[in-house]
Amino acid sequence: MSFIIYLSGEIHSEWREEIKQGIKDLSLDVEVLSPVTDHDASDAAGDHLGEESVTFWRDHKSSKVNAIRTQNAIKKADLVVIRFGEKYKQWNAAFDAGYCAALGKPYITMHAKNIIHPLKEVDALALAWTQTPQEVVDILKYTLQPY
Amino acid sequence: MSFIIYLSGEIHSEWREEIKQGIKDLSLDVEVLSPVTDHDASDAAGDHLGEESVTFWRDHKSSKVNAIRTQNAIKKADLVVIRFGEKYKQWNAAFDAGYCAALGKPYITMHAKNIIHPLKEVDALALAWTQTPQEVVDILKYTLQPY
Amino acid sequence: MSFIIYLSGEIHSEWREEIKQGIKDLSLDVEVLSPVTDHDASDAAGDHLGEESVTFWRDHKSSKVNAIRTQNAIKKADLVVIRFGEKYKQWNAAFDAGYCAALGKPYITMHAKNIIHPLKEVDALALAWTQTPQEVVDILKYTLQPY
Amino acid sequence: MSFIIYLSGEIHSEWREEIKQGIKDLSLDVEVLSPVTDHDASDAAGDHLGEESVTFWRDHKSSKVNAIRTQNAIKKADLVVIRFGEKYKQWNAAFDAGYCAALGKPYITMHAKNIIHPLKEVDALALAWTQTPQEVVDILKYTLQPY
Amino acid sequence: MSFIIYLSGEIHSEWREEIKQGIKDLSLDVEVLSPVTDHDASDAAGDHLGEESVTFWRDHKSSKVNAIRTQNAIKKADLVVIRFGEKYKQWNAAFDAGYCAALGKPYITMHAKNIIHPLKEVDALALAWTQTPQEVVDILKYTLQPY
Amino acid sequence: MSFIIYLSGEIHSEWREEIKQGIKDLSLDVEVLSPVTDHDASDAAGDHLGEESVTFWRDHKSSKVNAIRTQNAIKKADLVVIRFGEKYKQWNAAFDAGYCAALGKPYITMHAKNIIHPLKEVDALALAWTQTPQEVVDILKYTLQPY
Amino acid sequence: MSFIIYLSGEIHSEWREEIKQGIKDLSLDVEVLSPVTDHDASDAAGDHLGEESVTFWRDHKSSKVNAIRTQNAIKKADLVVIRFGEKYKQWNAAFDAGYCAALGKPYITMHAKNIIHPLKEVDALALAWTQTPQEVVDILKYTLQPY
Amino acid sequence: MSFIIYLSGEIHSEWREEIKQGIKDLSLDVEVLSPVTDHDASDAAGDHLGEESVTFWRDHKSSKVNAIRTQNAIKKADLVVIRFGEKYKQWNAAFDAGYCAALGKPYITMHAKNIIHPLKEVDALALAWTQTPQEVVDILKYTLQPY
Repeated sequence: MSFIIYLSGEIHSEWREEIKQGIKDLSLDVEVLSPVTDHDASDAAGDHLGEESVTFWRDHKSSKVNAIRTQNAIKKADLVVIRFGEKYKQWNAAFDAGYCAALGKPYITMHAKNIIHPLKEVDALALAWTQTPQEVVDILKYTLQPY
Repeated sequence: MSFIIYLSGEIHSEWREEIKQGIKDLSLDVEVLSPVTDHDASDAAGDHLGEESVTFWRDHKSSKVNAIRTQNAIKKADLVVIRFGEKYKQWNAAFDAGYCAALGKPYITMHAKNIIHPLKEVDALALAWTQTPQEVVDILKYTLQPY
Repeated sequence: MSFIIYLSGEIHSEWREEIKQGIKDLSLDVEVLSPVTDHDASDAAGDHLGEESVTFWRDHKSSKVNAIRTQNAIKKADLVVIRFGEKYKQWNAAFDAGYCAALGKPYITMHAKNIIHPLKEVDALALAWTQTPQEVVDILKYTLQPY
Repeated sequence: MSFIIYLSGEIHSEWREEIKQGIKDLSLDVEVLSPVTDHDASDAAGDHLGEESVTFWRDHKSSKVNAIRTQNAIKKADLVVIRFGEKYKQWNAAFDAGYCAALGKPYITMHAKNIIHPLKEVDALALAWTQTPQEVVDILKYTLQPY
Repeated sequence: MSFIIYLSGEIHSEWREEIKQGIKDLSLDVEVLSPVTDHDASDAAGDHLGEESVTFWRDHKSSKVNAIRTQNAIKKADLVVIRFGEKYKQWNAAFDAGYCAALGKPYITMHAKNIIHPLKEVDALALAWTQTPQEVVDILKYTLQPY
Repeated sequence: MSFIIYLSGEIHSEWREEIKQGIKDLSLDVEVLSPVTDHDASDAAGDHLGEESVTFWRDHKSSKVNAIRTQNAIKKADLVVIRFGEKYKQWNAAFDAGYCAALGKPYITMHAKNIIHPLKEVDALALAWTQTPQEVVDILKYTLQPY
Repeated sequence: MSFIIYLSGEIHSEWREEIKQGIKDLSLDVEVLSPVTDHDASDAAGDHLGEESVTFWRDHKSSKVNAIRTQNAIKKADLVVIRFGEKYKQWNAAFDAGYCAALGKPYITMHAKNIIHPLKEVDALALAWTQTPQEVVDILKYTLQPY
Repeated sequence: MSFIIYLSGEIHSEWREEIKQGIKDLSLDVEVLSPVTDHDASDAAGDHLGEESVTFWRDHKSSKVNAIRTQNAIKKADLVVIRFGEKYKQWNAAFDAGYCAALGKPYITMHAKNIIHPLKEVDALALAWTQTPQEVVDILKYTLQPY
């Protein structure tokens, strides 16, 4: 059975591809799950269910449709990797961290040094704080060495 | 038995006091829990356990000591109110929302219109989005009318 | 500690008052919880959070505000009594029954003979099917005899 | 691993076949579960365990035998789709919705506009409200796009 | 807060009274719960909900009505004491033991030496096997010594 | 994925083989689990861990070793079938029923008419009462008809 | 409602009394639970249930009787403090830590610097590492400041 | 589906290899999981995430990285075998036992006679106490005999 990871958070850099490449290079038996990372598609996830004139409800519908994918991904994952980038609020990433913490689902974070302080509660219950995709791959390599 | 609410999130405005005043004015049977809202005290919560030269670990220790209070508050609460202000990252507030969602603990949010979009995943599983302390008090008044 | 019951379902007859009267007549140590039973107030539960031009969202907001009260009531109850009347769809009552069943929360139903067939799945996991408030009171009296 | 959906509710129209056809047309990796949809067979599910002269008990036995299939289907499903038709009480469908809600199992509904109001509690905790099989298929297509 | 015990099982001897007397003699802060121990009343617990001509259903109704009391008692108890007497099948007592085991609820048994072998699975997950009410009281006395 | 059943209880008749034969005859996709049904082997399950001079502890060790198999079997099963024969106390079977009930694991019973009364609490939470292996097979056939 | 702490672990020093004194000096609203700390009494907790010639079973009986007290204490506690002293194996203390971790129960440790390394897995999921009773009291004081 | 075991505890003897050999010799369908058993590698598991000058934090980081592997292993295991050797504190092994106990995960211990007393709480909730790898293999052989 493969080890399943879910890559939550930032969608404006190539971090997911770098982790996937690292997994491939090492031939690790890892299945990678992710949210829909096309920003526009994600924002429009509920549009086909009918147009909304009020912004709140358009967002509401789309975020719930996205939740079908993300809730299942978190439940199936053996490890959740939560990435915080330099920009944007990224409250959904912190939300996923809290969701994992309450479920007892192992998660690690990936973010730069300059946002350590505002992420202290998120890091408090994480099993590791990483700064680069390579560090995530190193953890996977370590974790998945033969039994 | 009193109805217990936990007021999570922003610590730089008077919203908690306004909710408490509203509860008092209506003589509602509500017990109000909160995190430690003194910013400096909260950041220093772990300092008495020994100094740390590395920022990450100082933050780590303090956020864990704070978690003793906040985890218990969330578990005891009948309703969690999560406030997002205009400034700062406030990832701990989003973390609390995810924590509530995974536990099936009812929560509502309180934030301005201009941050609807980045909070859409947090609002998706909330039982209400409010904009003012008065709206929170109105919900409590409605919820606690006689059986 | 009092025995707590939650009276879910139909709001167009006096069944809750009859059960309360029966409890009072027998001086049973029972605390009675209920949803907000004023139909118009219940439909308008979310209106103070802002007007909605689309019916679906007005209903959505109100039903979620009501859920704050009902989810807490079910969790606190030792026994849930779910009443189905002669009229209306009353899907919220069946929803509460399913909610109780999944939580392992004891519940009983109260309905007339002529709707036995469509309620068979709801009755399947109930601990009793009753037809009158008096039968509910009799069950409480039996259950609460001295230890 | 396939994505598993359970199609709960109405058995008097072709909605399940339309969803299955849509899944097939798009070659989605979805496994479809359903209750026994032959009405007479479902009502008679317990008859082979001995005849009952009292209607209540015949229904009771059959609905419990059916529960073996439906409880397992809900537990195995990644998403439950709950359909309410124009006719009949369909309390079992609302019961399934409440069951899902309490388990934290993602579910969506499918029903016409004219029954929005009586279904507001059921829709409140659903991750989407759809009106046609095509909309359900669209959600599946969106949810299952490559990771 | 008092320590709560539930006394499950045999109803044809005075063991419950002896335990209560022992608690009273030692002034232990223990609240004692029990099923309805009047055999005829227990068998007739569902009779007021309508007569049944088939024995199975009369028993079915009564045992479910009794379950309202017993399920709540087990959930509220800090310790369940399960007594097996010399006579009768007493499958309900073994059922309660399994129920406790699955919930992680501490339970102890009380039975004579000559039925050790058939009770080995029940005793396997019990926290003690006792033979007399006095031994149960001794355990309570030990457990409840001052903190 | 196969449907998994666990056949708990009586080990002195051929009921397990008859159910297996019925499953085979109908080519049902069912995996059958069972306890160790060799009575002497089961009683001696812990003997290789060292001899015991006291009967209670020999039984204790063996029943715990057997629990490794039975606890896993119950957890993996989609349906548990619990058989009560004419003879012996069979408290382990009732224990398994209670264990299933507390876990929300679907179970059915199989026993003759003459022991309906002492099994009423066990039957109360079962999804069916059967009398013959053929009836169990019929339920499986019904439950496993194509989706 | 008081804040409940359970003081687990070492029984050969005065650390519990020092924490109690600190709580008293500050008039904190804390209820303190503990295991039976009289070593000989604890080892003999099961002796009144009959003598055992084999050491393993004497220990087995006593540790299970003690578990009635300790399991309840952990479940009721808002915070568990786990003390490791200089001497002895103290595996029961580490066992309690693992028990807390799996339940999501907040716990902190108290031990000297020289045993940091062997306790690293225990400290990994703790919310704080303390070295003195005073530090524990400081955490309580901080946690229990007014809401 | 294979039976999964997790071998927790001592890393300074060949007990894991002996169990694996026994499984191989008997061709048992068992998948064996283990922690990283290279002591130095395990202590350095977090070093690639950045150097730490303070011992506590180096240990902290490494033990959390190791927890990714061990928490997943325990959750996936059908049986956990926990080995205590003659030397060292081995608190992580006792921690794993407590973790299993709280989750209701079956576990057995393996240790010599001379440490029965300090392990009495750990053994109290174990399903077996073994002394040699051969005894563990015997239990597996017994447990996995054909259904």
